[in-house]
Amino acid sequence: MKESGRKQGAASPCAACKLLRRRCAQDCVFAPYFPADEPQKFANVHKVFGASNVNKMLQELPIHQRGDAVSSIVYEANARVRDPVYGCVGAISSLQQQIDTLQTQLALTQAEVVHLRQFIK
Amino acid sequence: MKESGRKQGAASPCAACKLLRRRCAQDCVFAPYFPADEPQKFANVHKVFGASNVNKMLQELPIHQRGDAVSSIVYEANARVRDPVYGCVGAISSLQQQIDTLQTQLALTQAEVVHLRQFIK
Repeated sequence: MKESGRKQGAASPCAACKLLRRRCAQDCVFAPYFPADEPQKFANVHKVFGASNVNKMLQELPIHQRGDAVSSIVYEANARVRDPVYGCVGAISSLQQQIDTLQTQLALTQAEVVHLRQFIK
Repeated sequence: MKESGRKQGAASPCAACKLLRRRCAQDCVFAPYFPADEPQKFANVHKVFGASNVNKMLQELPIHQRGDAVSSIVYEANARVRDPVYGCVGAISSLQQQIDTLQTQLALTQAEVVHLRQFIK
């Protein structure tokens, strides 16, 4: 009855409350997304965004959107820890370069198709 | 002599110190990147990352990389304010979809080139 989705029952704090050294309440906003057995997942989020900011961000969202929000926050935090200068904006730049390259290749290949068709008629 | 890159001299605090209601020191880590006339730029960064975290992130970087780090942090903060669920990870998903579409179009067009060349020999 007291488990409410936690892996180890209410007595075991989630990774967030463990790091913050506080009691993990039954309605802890972090507990569903930061299980005790994945401490690094919260550590990076706390280092980059701060527990208090993430708490506020999650509280402002309806429950059904919080899982997706946590995934994107964890992704951003890990990217910022890996690359402290560009974070996940580095990934965006790299993807945009790939798009530029593909668009150029596509335009050239489409031009070749047009060129080749002239010889077939 | 006392200006050191600030637009309005040492007496006028940068946007960060203004929001945090503190004295803007001569060596303030925020002042070069958050001028007083762009208050929203820091407001979003503070809301998403927290001034203390950003201060630490910038202090850990050499000065010549801090401008790029601020740009990427501002970009991420604005994206998170616009889209509280996905933030700039939403942009990454969208760019990856564009890449998938372009790769499919390119493969089809390249196949057409191979097909057309058969008729020309």
